[in-house]
Amino acid sequence: MRTVVGVMGSGQPLDKQAYDTAYRLGALIAMHGWALLTGGTASGVMDAASRGAHEAGGLVIGVLRGPDGAEASSYVDVGIRTGMGDARNAINVLSSDVVVALPGGSGTLSEIALALKSGRPVIVLGWDPGRAMRASGHGRLSDAQTPEDAVEIARRVLLSDM
Amino acid sequence: MRTVVGVMGSGQPLDKQAYDTAYRLGALIAMHGWALLTGGTASGVMDAASRGAHEAGGLVIGVLRGPDGAEASSYVDVGIRTGMGDARNAINVLSSDVVVALPGGSGTLSEIALALKSGRPVIVLGWDPGRAMRASGHGRLSDAQTPEDAVEIARRVLLSDM
Amino acid sequence: MRTVVGVMGSGQPLDKQAYDTAYRLGALIAMHGWALLTGGTASGVMDAASRGAHEAGGLVIGVLRGPDGAEASSYVDVGIRTGMGDARNAINVLSSDVVVALPGGSGTLSEIALALKSGRPVIVLGWDPGRAMRASGHGRLSDAQTPEDAVEIARRVLLSDM
Amino acid sequence: MRTVVGVMGSGQPLDKQAYDTAYRLGALIAMHGWALLTGGTASGVMDAASRGAHEAGGLVIGVLRGPDGAEASSYVDVGIRTGMGDARNAINVLSSDVVVALPGGSGTLSEIALALKSGRPVIVLGWDPGRAMRASGHGRLSDAQTPEDAVEIARRVLLSDM
Repeated sequence: MRTVVGVMGSGQPLDKQAYDTAYRLGALIAMHGWALLTGGTASGVMDAASRGAHEAGGLVIGVLRGPDGAEASSYVDVGIRTGMGDARNAINVLSSDVVVALPGGSGTLSEIALALKSGRPVIVLGWDPGRAMRASGHGRLSDAQTPEDAVEIARRVLLSDM
Repeated sequence: MRTVVGVMGSGQPLDKQAYDTAYRLGALIAMHGWALLTGGTASGVMDAASRGAHEAGGLVIGVLRGPDGAEASSYVDVGIRTGMGDARNAINVLSSDVVVALPGGSGTLSEIALALKSGRPVIVLGWDPGRAMRASGHGRLSDAQTPEDAVEIARRVLLSDM
Repeated sequence: MRTVVGVMGSGQPLDKQAYDTAYRLGALIAMHGWALLTGGTASGVMDAASRGAHEAGGLVIGVLRGPDGAEASSYVDVGIRTGMGDARNAINVLSSDVVVALPGGSGTLSEIALALKSGRPVIVLGWDPGRAMRASGHGRLSDAQTPEDAVEIARRVLLSDM
Repeated sequence: MRTVVGVMGSGQPLDKQAYDTAYRLGALIAMHGWALLTGGTASGVMDAASRGAHEAGGLVIGVLRGPDGAEASSYVDVGIRTGMGDARNAINVLSSDVVVALPGGSGTLSEIALALKSGRPVIVLGWDPGRAMRASGHGRLSDAQTPEDAVEIARRVLLSDM
């Protein structure tokens, strides 16, 4: 199976800097030959990262909340239509070999927590999900400051997990 | 439908004080005539709160990770066997009219986040889930110091939601 | 945990005879002291069986498709709000110790199949789900002609499963 | 998003003819440029169809029952690890634009039923899921005798759905 890197983060509109970070992260993931997985929605981090990966020639998987794909980003190649709402967040992180979390709200926090619960490594890029979340990760949570940094940490984590 | 109060928290063994808090919270929920909902496992907060509610004559719902009920607390009256692992955390919080979160790890943090994501009010009892989690709740997260306090807040929240 | 009997069947409007059958089945389940579990919707077999059980003083569990309970029958005591759409059919049958299937369409057929897949006994009341379905059950599928008959088979099946 | 064709069928060991049919179906799907989606397990129809699509250069999606990919066919390119057991059958069919069902047992029957429930067209290849299932499909269920036949029907169905 191909290596899958999940990118989570806000579904709200992004300012230019946040958009560029998510886009660049998606592009770097594609350049490493990894498949990108997001929640698939045509907004926020999901859309920007998907566009970055798509335009770099990568494979983009969107694990969608809805049953019919109506909310999907146009940069998603394969849409997994769950019809399960937020319960699909558990699938997002189980299906990722490593999760990169950009700034986000309760949805993103749920994904970080579910990832740590199931033993998936999490790389937090440019924000702080809080002390309780860090403690719950038992060392599986790393910090990155740039997309390049995040992808380098992901590479090392993936090597050590093999 | 009956009012359902969800109690989330650590699945690890509890010290006496933490056990008593969870037990007392379960008992108070039952005394208010509310059904108690937990993740149903025979350990930690889930077991202690279920015992408290059960011994106070309440109805105890356990939304279980497994498909066959093998992990269930003996104080659960109705076991919802999901077979869905951690994805059932989304069901726990959707099915609760209000969620009380005792100290816990990544599983509990995921439930707080999922509750806030779906607009359920959350009462955190005796610990701090972090600034990012608080901010993500947009005012739906309250703090309590004792089970009595938590139940009083729950009562007010339930009234204002009607 | 309490014994739970699941009742599945059409969500469409019922004629008087079909309504009476579902209502009577619900009532008999309650009279045996079993909890009734249905898909919880305010229509068809789910609503009629829930009313029968409720009016006989039983406990009625509704495992709902939606996230907020909007579709729930007013005879449901405890609503499990899954937000998972048809994927909740798997939970319906896993949570039932035995499933009684009244005439229905694709949703009901999916529940019979999922029940057989997970080893739950199924009692088909007054219709034929087809030869392929029967063969797939490896002897776990029984036929009944009346609610009384179905409940008597359920009683025997539950005894033999203990 | 890419067109996705789901292939369902027995997870049991196949005789040579059944293996060849599933393999050829997978290969034809890949040759049409469609992504193949199966339940992802290294057995039966799922494994044979995945191998056929893989060896024809196609993209193979496996929507897995387990949380860690342990059961996955080695011909799966992208594994969606749901950890949800049979509840993932609902995701399999929602994520498919058309479903081809080879002979199978209760799991396959549940997928046909769930597909029809959510309005997905189903092509049954070489067996009969029963009259009740047919009636429940309201015309969305077609029959094919060969993989070539199935793929031709799929092509027409996909065109008419656009």
